[in-house]
Amino acid sequence: MTAASTAHDKAAPPGPLCRVRLLVAYDGSPFHGFALQPGQPTVAGRLGAALARLAGHEVSLTCAGRTDAGVHARGQVVHTDVAEGLLDAHQEPGRLVRSLTRQVGPEVAVLDAQRAISGFDARRSALSRRYRYLLLRTPWPDPLLRSFSWHVPGELDLAAMRLGADTLLGEHDFAAFCRRPPNEGSTVRCVKETRLSIEGDGRLLAFEIEANAFCHQMVRAIVGALVAVGKGRMTPADLLARLRSKDRSGGQSLAPPFGLILEQVRYPPDQVEGGIWSPPRWGSVA
Amino acid sequence: MTAASTAHDKAAPPGPLCRVRLLVAYDGSPFHGFALQPGQPTVAGRLGAALARLAGHEVSLTCAGRTDAGVHARGQVVHTDVAEGLLDAHQEPGRLVRSLTRQVGPEVAVLDAQRAISGFDARRSALSRRYRYLLLRTPWPDPLLRSFSWHVPGELDLAAMRLGADTLLGEHDFAAFCRRPPNEGSTVRCVKETRLSIEGDGRLLAFEIEANAFCHQMVRAIVGALVAVGKGRMTPADLLARLRSKDRSGGQSLAPPFGLILEQVRYPPDQVEGGIWSPPRWGSVA
Repeated sequence: MTAASTAHDKAAPPGPLCRVRLLVAYDGSPFHGFALQPGQPTVAGRLGAALARLAGHEVSLTCAGRTDAGVHARGQVVHTDVAEGLLDAHQEPGRLVRSLTRQVGPEVAVLDAQRAISGFDARRSALSRRYRYLLLRTPWPDPLLRSFSWHVPGELDLAAMRLGADTLLGEHDFAAFCRRPPNEGSTVRCVKETRLSIEGDGRLLAFEIEANAFCHQMVRAIVGALVAVGKGRMTPADLLARLRSKDRSGGQSLAPPFGLILEQVRYPPDQVEGGIWSPPRWGSVA
Repeated sequence: MTAASTAHDKAAPPGPLCRVRLLVAYDGSPFHGFALQPGQPTVAGRLGAALARLAGHEVSLTCAGRTDAGVHARGQVVHTDVAEGLLDAHQEPGRLVRSLTRQVGPEVAVLDAQRAISGFDARRSALSRRYRYLLLRTPWPDPLLRSFSWHVPGELDLAAMRLGADTLLGEHDFAAFCRRPPNEGSTVRCVKETRLSIEGDGRLLAFEIEANAFCHQMVRAIVGALVAVGKGRMTPADLLARLRSKDRSGGQSLAPPFGLILEQVRYPPDQVEGGIWSPPRWGSVA
């Protein structure tokens, strides 16, 4: 999650640093995920290079949700520490937002930039993340939606899917729905809300899920299982049994990444006004 | 509008031909428009090659609306003449649709395929075309919508835009809103409906226009003028004066192609059941 020092070989920050938080949207299609990967296009690489150019020093980025290759964001939150001079030079409201967006667009957009209060951490301060997954239900594919939805033709039993989603609410060990990286700690997470809604003239089914945090590929594993429930290949009780098994070896299918969007991150109201950071009517930097 | 004979060097059609009409959707972003252009990716090139492979002979395609580079379609209608054998081999409902979509996807999708009645012509039989143009009104760009909307931040006077759009209704010489190719005939067209509506939580403004036919770049010239009206750079009366001038040298600005979608084509009900060909609940071929 840090900008490679070697990639932007700049001097150390001149003078005191201040922490800035950024609200970021991106089309994940052309990226190998948010986190830096040597030799691959990543969101952190694109954004970090632009910030380093503007700030005149190396930067390191921390994000609220490490999205995988192909996953999108409309409300990713990122923090970084930059020389005070960067904000001094961009005091006019919206100027930093515009400068950054010009450099990182069109696949990435910086929606807002604010001076963060002391101790704010985009990842550690976050109370919850909200993801959204779009399923296209029509029998025929839609070329215009192909990068943002999973095409699942045929009938889906929405009532069964809702029952399945309900079983996930609350605190559970989601090991059965996680790719567990080596040395990772607990896979216990708390799901606060799930919602299944029909959109776009009935053509789209949106699944939203909010949890304190997510394990790696957890949303995609859940959506894969819910579609299996909707198709009648699993019952909601099977899904609950899988959850309780804590066993990922059951050969579940992952929903593809391109249907997934990181929508929103929630913070304590004393760290982010109102707790949820939505784009302001006009871009600004404090 | 014809598939280059040299591109698909096949034998002449074996036996009698029948006319097939196709309902086609595409993301125009990667294409240099619908019409064939040597050495360029085009929708007709992609679709014609797939049809030629399936039919075993050269095909020529005729479309209802020749969309420019970057322009999309959700309801393009195309006709072509193919050997009877192609339909015989694809009698099972949806089989031809699936075969074609597998070959032309994911940027192009064939939504439906039907045997056309005698005399049907996708272009000449069409009574009207309906286009839709999306404006993104938020101050910040949206990476997920960048290929399907024109980002126009700042205030727009919708009432003035509606007045401007109203002046276009009915039969007029649209020379002032057309790129006139050499030797083209009349630029008189009849606009049947215009509609300006707010969508997507207020973030999008959709302009829809239906006319018997459109001159080249007419919708984009109209949208460019309507945005000028919305921004107060022109009045609705200025727009009417420009229409009456029949003069394209006034230096108007074209809206970019990527915000434009060909939505629907209307036909006489005795040529296409119901007059408007929407995708069926299940893909089929008669």
